[in-house]
Amino acid sequence: MTGPIVVINPNSNPAVTDGLSAAVEPFRAAVPVECVTLEEGPFGIESQRDVDQVALPLAAMIERRPDAAAFVIACYSDPGIDLCRATAKVPVFGIQESGVLSALALGDRFGVLAIAEASIRRHIRYLRRMGVEGRLAGERALNMTVDESARSGDALARLTEVGRALIADGADVLILGCTGMSRHRAALQAALGRPVVDPTQAAVAMAMGVVLA
Amino acid sequence: MTGPIVVINPNSNPAVTDGLSAAVEPFRAAVPVECVTLEEGPFGIESQRDVDQVALPLAAMIERRPDAAAFVIACYSDPGIDLCRATAKVPVFGIQESGVLSALALGDRFGVLAIAEASIRRHIRYLRRMGVEGRLAGERALNMTVDESARSGDALARLTEVGRALIADGADVLILGCTGMSRHRAALQAALGRPVVDPTQAAVAMAMGVVLA
Amino acid sequence: MTGPIVVINPNSNPAVTDGLSAAVEPFRAAVPVECVTLEEGPFGIESQRDVDQVALPLAAMIERRPDAAAFVIACYSDPGIDLCRATAKVPVFGIQESGVLSALALGDRFGVLAIAEASIRRHIRYLRRMGVEGRLAGERALNMTVDESARSGDALARLTEVGRALIADGADVLILGCTGMSRHRAALQAALGRPVVDPTQAAVAMAMGVVLA
Amino acid sequence: MTGPIVVINPNSNPAVTDGLSAAVEPFRAAVPVECVTLEEGPFGIESQRDVDQVALPLAAMIERRPDAAAFVIACYSDPGIDLCRATAKVPVFGIQESGVLSALALGDRFGVLAIAEASIRRHIRYLRRMGVEGRLAGERALNMTVDESARSGDALARLTEVGRALIADGADVLILGCTGMSRHRAALQAALGRPVVDPTQAAVAMAMGVVLA
Amino acid sequence: MTGPIVVINPNSNPAVTDGLSAAVEPFRAAVPVECVTLEEGPFGIESQRDVDQVALPLAAMIERRPDAAAFVIACYSDPGIDLCRATAKVPVFGIQESGVLSALALGDRFGVLAIAEASIRRHIRYLRRMGVEGRLAGERALNMTVDESARSGDALARLTEVGRALIADGADVLILGCTGMSRHRAALQAALGRPVVDPTQAAVAMAMGVVLA
Amino acid sequence: MTGPIVVINPNSNPAVTDGLSAAVEPFRAAVPVECVTLEEGPFGIESQRDVDQVALPLAAMIERRPDAAAFVIACYSDPGIDLCRATAKVPVFGIQESGVLSALALGDRFGVLAIAEASIRRHIRYLRRMGVEGRLAGERALNMTVDESARSGDALARLTEVGRALIADGADVLILGCTGMSRHRAALQAALGRPVVDPTQAAVAMAMGVVLA
Repeated sequence: MTGPIVVINPNSNPAVTDGLSAAVEPFRAAVPVECVTLEEGPFGIESQRDVDQVALPLAAMIERRPDAAAFVIACYSDPGIDLCRATAKVPVFGIQESGVLSALALGDRFGVLAIAEASIRRHIRYLRRMGVEGRLAGERALNMTVDESARSGDALARLTEVGRALIADGADVLILGCTGMSRHRAALQAALGRPVVDPTQAAVAMAMGVVLA
Repeated sequence: MTGPIVVINPNSNPAVTDGLSAAVEPFRAAVPVECVTLEEGPFGIESQRDVDQVALPLAAMIERRPDAAAFVIACYSDPGIDLCRATAKVPVFGIQESGVLSALALGDRFGVLAIAEASIRRHIRYLRRMGVEGRLAGERALNMTVDESARSGDALARLTEVGRALIADGADVLILGCTGMSRHRAALQAALGRPVVDPTQAAVAMAMGVVLA
Repeated sequence: MTGPIVVINPNSNPAVTDGLSAAVEPFRAAVPVECVTLEEGPFGIESQRDVDQVALPLAAMIERRPDAAAFVIACYSDPGIDLCRATAKVPVFGIQESGVLSALALGDRFGVLAIAEASIRRHIRYLRRMGVEGRLAGERALNMTVDESARSGDALARLTEVGRALIADGADVLILGCTGMSRHRAALQAALGRPVVDPTQAAVAMAMGVVLA
Repeated sequence: MTGPIVVINPNSNPAVTDGLSAAVEPFRAAVPVECVTLEEGPFGIESQRDVDQVALPLAAMIERRPDAAAFVIACYSDPGIDLCRATAKVPVFGIQESGVLSALALGDRFGVLAIAEASIRRHIRYLRRMGVEGRLAGERALNMTVDESARSGDALARLTEVGRALIADGADVLILGCTGMSRHRAALQAALGRPVVDPTQAAVAMAMGVVLA
Repeated sequence: MTGPIVVINPNSNPAVTDGLSAAVEPFRAAVPVECVTLEEGPFGIESQRDVDQVALPLAAMIERRPDAAAFVIACYSDPGIDLCRATAKVPVFGIQESGVLSALALGDRFGVLAIAEASIRRHIRYLRRMGVEGRLAGERALNMTVDESARSGDALARLTEVGRALIADGADVLILGCTGMSRHRAALQAALGRPVVDPTQAAVAMAMGVVLA
Repeated sequence: MTGPIVVINPNSNPAVTDGLSAAVEPFRAAVPVECVTLEEGPFGIESQRDVDQVALPLAAMIERRPDAAAFVIACYSDPGIDLCRATAKVPVFGIQESGVLSALALGDRFGVLAIAEASIRRHIRYLRRMGVEGRLAGERALNMTVDESARSGDALARLTEVGRALIADGADVLILGCTGMSRHRAALQAALGRPVVDPTQAAVAMAMGVVLA
């Protein structure tokens, strides 16, 4: 039988891993999906340093899992994606890349809800590297920490407000630019009346496409 | 529970529908996937007229299936995609679009194996409309009919030859630009040593991502 | 002698055909220009369904006119353009394409006055397919029906207001994104102090360039 | 009545002006078209110096012709185009720009037959400035002087050979990248089986579109 | 030893040349840098005519300086750049081009402070020709004359105001789109907290890179 | 006085640092330039792992040098560039970025001489991220190790051969895609008759532009 899709949370916050596991639960009927925590990672990935410091530990974890059928790097900055791909013998999916590619099938222009202002430039450079920035309507920050966004009772209200601003920017489809907002996806989609993509779910779906083919 | 992903074969050749059904079989553990034939369609979709004449019948079929959770239009020209999207209340995936987006996660530049020379210009216009033509390494024709490609014992040899030419053009990942070559996917991937995307499988995987989210 | 340029109104409203005929009147000194109504068309082309349903009837009309020296498809959505080109033995001009190409010779960035919000996404996809979206300053909707825009006494005031907004967006040249506004072209150009392109006239001029060469 | 379209030959070779006049003859049924020689120009425009030295004399000629309804600058390098536009109160068309825009309506990718290797870089920069280089299939030099190309009995054979190379590069439509080859246009089009655009005719047609509107 | 970098002020205002000389003073420790006035130039370069009329005199000056190791054309419109390059046997740097290229190393998106509204379209066309317009955040005019901008005591306040608007447009780095504002560079950079590029200094630095290599 | 430009060799091979120091020697008349070895680095940077593992040590070295006026990361993969910029209080230049930007001022299209085939995809992604890939004529590998390229007596012959192939691809200017080939720059430029950019020199020149401004 095929091995599992291994979803790696590159931060060391187990609550985030639990959230990922809940988000991908519906996919487990089709393939085993295992969510693991990178214990060497920082508690949250916010700065460029956080991004760069997890590249080698992620590659090491990939080497420890020769049984995996595919990997998902579950942080919206797609940390270490090039090294993980150079290391793995199976496909590796970054959630920013997968989220954006999936959104391109759901609307003409996409908007991104980022956690923090500081990450937007990094994301835009990545979109330009992907060659798809021509279809970006805008990216706007929620200006909450990863942790706050996962816990705050006000998160949905803030997501809806920023989502509406992105729709005014021209977005037909929205992407949650973070791993901690999955549980708000359906409610936000209902509130906005536009598709909302959870990038971890998008990446797992793409990985399934390869694993099940 | 959720309704099925309905994969519509826009041509009236039931052997093609059977091939689609075999290609998506592995995904049925996760969601119901139903493959249907558009009986009003031509026996194969080769010309621009073939493409345009199925748009309204496809939309009519979509209206007859309010139970569907998502639709896949299973012809590499993505016929009627705009009308199908305007008609459906659920997401609609075209296999060219889905195949290309999926390939973008598996390599830097992609190559396409088209059935016939005549369809390449149409495909390129579509890539430009998608805004991703900057990542196309090349598209080359097998110069076989849809029917031949599905039946010919020599198909794999021809696919391998054209695939190697695309790799020489710079392709890291290949896309089968047709619905009739699914059963050669794994063998071609092994022969070329590069990922090979079956676009119908890619579209069903993307549809699953939405349906299961 | 050369045959006529045949301008096809893809909707069945003869008043629109009359308007087209008036708009192209000045060109008749050089070549015969015949304006015909597609009787199978809807009364106006507003939805994606309207666009798709006229493709085959347009091709059929093209086949009935082997005497034509060139064809112009006179609806700003350029319905059936690919099929018409595959069918005709002579050049076929879409008015959106011709209007945009002509505008590119009259200013650095262009703005489009669309009839309705709903058609803007369709137009933008078409510009991206053309590969010229980098020169679009903006497209804004008049939010009038085709019929209203042709008849309303207030049309010029509304056109001027939207045209000024497009100039503020950066447009040097404006395009009437519809067939029903030709008679306002000169007045709008005077009011705005910028070139205003009637796309049907632009397409007939391009067709003349080929026919007379 | 409307004034003439004034076509300016920026070189001082009257034989070239005569060729222009013959090329635009068919358009005179619709509007007066006058072809004039810039006597201050060099005998042929080949180098960057030739291009730059005619800018001011072209603007001076424009000022001497307040009766013109439009101007065409009839050299494929579009010399002085920005200054001519800043000077004229009526539209000014460059033949490279007009030829390329017209070609975009006749095929998906275009090829250019240049007189000399040395001008290709200049043309490519101009296409990039226009924002349409994504649709260039290729530009290839005939490697003849302006004068040779106008007179040589072998010109058609050479044009056909280079045209075929451009078609192999992917061109659907060809542009004569010079003013001196107009009389070969029809024969070349017949030989290649693809549309061939004479850029002076294209520019006059676009000018007519504005003048007659 | 190597010859000097010759910085040519294409206008005939010696105060501007003096300003250039002050701006490049710090570079003279490494290489001789000579600043010269083009006496045939207009007193300021503001219109397209001003731009075009200096091309030939600039080339003539280049021919008079066979001792130069490199040339810098010190006007933000990069007048005559193509002819100067075709004429010189050594590298020629335009300050717009150099300023933009240098800015691309200092931030993701750049903003330009132009002297006058009328020059912005010209600059944008040039950025498109360079192929880097995708990284432009915006260009905004100070709406002062060249002379005013050099003398006005209020210049810094106005620069700061326009610079802040460009930062709000998304600029990470600013470019002084003129030669007369060099002495405000450091103060503006301090006021805005973002890198500010003086394009003449950028061009001389690039020239040094070639001369000293 | 200003502090030094600190050029960091991210590999631990002191011979490479010595080569860098020789390459930047001519610039020391203007500003102090110090070349240092990252002792934690691998002996050569060839793989993606090599690239990623030096990011944090580079940032640590930057923190140890608060006296620096600017930094240059002297490896053509621009390892750790984002983190170095987030860490430093002064500008940081990557040599790939600086080499490419400098080449854009010396020719219309550039070619890159890479050490190894495996690094080309990485470089292309970086060019796309920069938004300048439209001006790449081609990148070709020498297929020598970093060490071989620095020592081999045959290096110039191989460089010339690959440089000629890039010129045939359309390159007007060449970039040495490595730090170990600086001493061949002048000879290669003479052999090819086109500008050849040493990226370390280009980066130091750009850094000087900022430091001396």
